[in-house]
Amino acid sequence: MSAIDTLAGELAKLPGIGRKTALRLTYHLLKQPAGQSKRLADALITLAERVHPCAHCFNLTEEEICSICRDGRRDPAVICAVEEASDIGAIERAGEFRGVYHVLGGRLSPLDGIGPDDLTIPQLEHRVAAGAVREVILATNPSIEGEATALYVQRKLSPYRLTVTRIARGLPVGGDLEYADGVTIAQALSARRAM
Amino acid sequence: MSAIDTLAGELAKLPGIGRKTALRLTYHLLKQPAGQSKRLADALITLAERVHPCAHCFNLTEEEICSICRDGRRDPAVICAVEEASDIGAIERAGEFRGVYHVLGGRLSPLDGIGPDDLTIPQLEHRVAAGAVREVILATNPSIEGEATALYVQRKLSPYRLTVTRIARGLPVGGDLEYADGVTIAQALSARRAM
Repeated sequence: MSAIDTLAGELAKLPGIGRKTALRLTYHLLKQPAGQSKRLADALITLAERVHPCAHCFNLTEEEICSICRDGRRDPAVICAVEEASDIGAIERAGEFRGVYHVLGGRLSPLDGIGPDDLTIPQLEHRVAAGAVREVILATNPSIEGEATALYVQRKLSPYRLTVTRIARGLPVGGDLEYADGVTIAQALSARRAM
Repeated sequence: MSAIDTLAGELAKLPGIGRKTALRLTYHLLKQPAGQSKRLADALITLAERVHPCAHCFNLTEEEICSICRDGRRDPAVICAVEEASDIGAIERAGEFRGVYHVLGGRLSPLDGIGPDDLTIPQLEHRVAAGAVREVILATNPSIEGEATALYVQRKLSPYRLTVTRIARGLPVGGDLEYADGVTIAQALSARRAM
């Protein structure tokens, strides 16, 4: 297989990139200085080698502990639980939240065979059981699975002495937290209510 | 800058990929086995290091001479001149053409400062001057610049004893040859007329 077909084949494996777009991107790269392809390749290798989940919160990081968990100005007694690490960036851009995070690693989805032990729900329970947690904000997506996941986590945490809240459904139902705008996310955070 | 931001920044340099899509692709790759990022990186490096223009026709190849120029079953007396190497794939898929190619490397565009010497028009003239060429088919895009380029090449080749033809405007005017379907390209080739 030629180098052009090989690259186009690899690019076409990415979501939202079809065969024709992959070929167009490949020919685009061929017209650029070779440095651009190499910088992209380096960035891919660095990503694959260096980025892994934070030992505390499962956010993606290049260190043992992520920069949010290490930040002394943030309140470790308030944990915001999200489905994916990419959701953290969306909430951080809203600039409203000063606590820490917990990345669940997905949502409960019996049809896809994803149960509680496939997510980091046990690890969240350990963090809560260790004490010193005042509130857990459940910021899973406002979809059926996201709601079910929030409900499940709320029940798991009910034996502990803390407040469990759910972000307000200011987010459009069925939408995706990752693509929401900062104002909507800020409103959803401030209008959170006890479960 | 973090590895995630670095990769998202490099991906966002590609055409049609904005900042949010670049981040989405990066997080997608983080969820895949590391092998996928590495295969993509390898394909990019191979592309940058191995692919270069054919010494005869400026098609992209990993050899000194491209596979089409080396193919003894093809008629070297009929040259199809195209703007970009990516156009060759579109014509090959139509399965109609059994001659060879010449990649001009773009189109005449005075507004962008692209003149005849920025394209491989002198090299096409050398190939024609060397004799044994019976016909040059001008398959530049059916846009203003593509028509102007075809007209310029036709005038440059008029002193030589050969037929210069233009693919029929079966292609939608203002369109892009790379994205045309095979039937339209086949019709445009068979309905070509003398200039």
